[in-house]
Amino acid sequence: MSDVKTTTIAIDAMGGDFGPEVTLAGAAITLERRPDTRFVLFGDETAIEKVLDGHPALRKASVVHHCEMSIAMDAKPSQALRQGRQRSSMWKAIEAVKTGEAQVSVSAGNTGALMAMAKFCLRTMAEIERPAIAAIWPTLRGESIVLDVGATIGADAQQLIDFSMMGGAMARALFGLERPTVGLLNIGVEEVKGQDEVREAGRLLKESNLEHIQYHGFVEGDDLGKGTVDVVVTEGFTGNVALKTAEGTAKQIGAYLREAMSRTILAKLGYILAKGAFDRLRDKMDPRKVNGGVFLGLNGIVIKSHGGADAEGFAAALDLAHAMARHELMDKIAADLQSFHDRMGSEPTRQEAESGSASA
Amino acid sequence: MSDVKTTTIAIDAMGGDFGPEVTLAGAAITLERRPDTRFVLFGDETAIEKVLDGHPALRKASVVHHCEMSIAMDAKPSQALRQGRQRSSMWKAIEAVKTGEAQVSVSAGNTGALMAMAKFCLRTMAEIERPAIAAIWPTLRGESIVLDVGATIGADAQQLIDFSMMGGAMARALFGLERPTVGLLNIGVEEVKGQDEVREAGRLLKESNLEHIQYHGFVEGDDLGKGTVDVVVTEGFTGNVALKTAEGTAKQIGAYLREAMSRTILAKLGYILAKGAFDRLRDKMDPRKVNGGVFLGLNGIVIKSHGGADAEGFAAALDLAHAMARHELMDKIAADLQSFHDRMGSEPTRQEAESGSASA
Repeated sequence: MSDVKTTTIAIDAMGGDFGPEVTLAGAAITLERRPDTRFVLFGDETAIEKVLDGHPALRKASVVHHCEMSIAMDAKPSQALRQGRQRSSMWKAIEAVKTGEAQVSVSAGNTGALMAMAKFCLRTMAEIERPAIAAIWPTLRGESIVLDVGATIGADAQQLIDFSMMGGAMARALFGLERPTVGLLNIGVEEVKGQDEVREAGRLLKESNLEHIQYHGFVEGDDLGKGTVDVVVTEGFTGNVALKTAEGTAKQIGAYLREAMSRTILAKLGYILAKGAFDRLRDKMDPRKVNGGVFLGLNGIVIKSHGGADAEGFAAALDLAHAMARHELMDKIAADLQSFHDRMGSEPTRQEAESGSASA
Repeated sequence: MSDVKTTTIAIDAMGGDFGPEVTLAGAAITLERRPDTRFVLFGDETAIEKVLDGHPALRKASVVHHCEMSIAMDAKPSQALRQGRQRSSMWKAIEAVKTGEAQVSVSAGNTGALMAMAKFCLRTMAEIERPAIAAIWPTLRGESIVLDVGATIGADAQQLIDFSMMGGAMARALFGLERPTVGLLNIGVEEVKGQDEVREAGRLLKESNLEHIQYHGFVEGDDLGKGTVDVVVTEGFTGNVALKTAEGTAKQIGAYLREAMSRTILAKLGYILAKGAFDRLRDKMDPRKVNGGVFLGLNGIVIKSHGGADAEGFAAALDLAHAMARHELMDKIAADLQSFHDRMGSEPTRQEAESGSASA
């Protein structure tokens, strides 16, 4: 490797429905687009080397670490942790972030196991109680960040504020914004609406007037597609349902469209003429383009790719990993948390309050 | 009016963004489609009579009751109740269901005020703790019912079961199904996933093996568009977010499609040729077709139309009201609740348990 500043991504090569075949093909795509990337590949050495035979450039940019086992896609988190700790490709890829061998880790393995291992290996940040998974959401204005999309069910006001800051930091890193707008997902925009936790978080965000995020207020489900704000914050149950509902609706409309366009000869002819436009539309709706859930709140970045992603999809998750590492997401999150606590001034942090040792 | 069995709908003629102009035009459309409908119109008599001048057939099928006031679209529920009880067009239209003058009541007025008045006037059914709003959801298989989409935030296991039975009864009334399938919205289909309340409700629904509904298990956000089950049950916060997220996604894709089709000459030509297909698609995605949230769990049926609905949209809500009344929704709900409590056998109902007077 040269002296030029590189970005190193650890990959759980065995993760996902297809294993090295797809994860390494994805890495090869990302390497072509971002030649400064280096990879540390974890998994069955024989299987990996066999696939690398077809990707000579990737082989040059990669280090391979053999792992004796990989985590099954249907393994329970507790079981995965018990059996796969210290030795599975999933664990080892996460650990590479802890040891500093890589700046970010990517796996298409099962979400529950990945989150359990990431929490166990990297631990949550001192100021953060619970991690979140952030998703990139395509909108009419471009892209937004939505979190939490399923790491934890329920969130109190302080956790929603933590999510706001972490999502804000990610928007700064990914979109290059100075002070991204943040909205709390609710069932109405009036201040009296919604869950107590959401209203309390709204009040605190408004009062604290943070340096790095601009609190917009409440947003509703239809604001997600509009892109009303850069970051939409909610707890994991609602966020997960919203994400899957949007994916489902997009597929549903795609099916309607295909059905309509194949129904008459005129429609078929129209389709052929407008094929460029339809391709553009398909491209825009392509879920592979926004593949990658970012685990936030841990001492290191882990990215989860869809298990069923193909090479192009997995490459999107690697591109995202590259951006997160390149723009120093971890530093930005730490700075935002610091800023929040400075601003809240004499109020003790939760941990201080709990241990009874508040200091100004 | 003749001796033929008619369906009578009470209308808050003043509700919605446009008032009598739209609500009465909607009634005229429904009357044409369903000539057995009769209307009781509540609101400013002068304004109503003026619009009726343009709809002679509707005038013949209607009775007008003058009301001195109407509820503002932005009125707070408590304020609406204080000022509008006994005298507003919204209240009077609901009261017509209580007195038996109408079988069902429809308003495009504000949701919070309508729910507050409906609860106050009709009261919740003896076995039901909290009402729900049910929405019709277009799916790839046809239509499903989703509830609660915003009446109450949070729901315990028993409330989710109540929602299952009420939604099931509505599916029997509306879709003519013998034993509709019911799914609980969750963030995974495995039994260990999700909120405690959802898992507990799932366990009880499975055990009780109800006569009138077929419990399917957990469903996820993307099952909504697929139409995996006839009835999807969730608490009001998540349901509201899911509904608005789907609406937002549909609009977003519509915008992408318009943009793509107007971008090049070929695309425009293709659009012209395939116009029939596009019209079909627009028709399929037309939110006006599925307008109408049904309030369930009260001693009478109240239907909420979108405030911004046009005449065609308001007519869809009236058509829905007609179907609900025609197929004796209230009787079906009562039968389902009875069946559930019979089946649960010696277990006391919540009310009995609370009052300490359990009887088998």
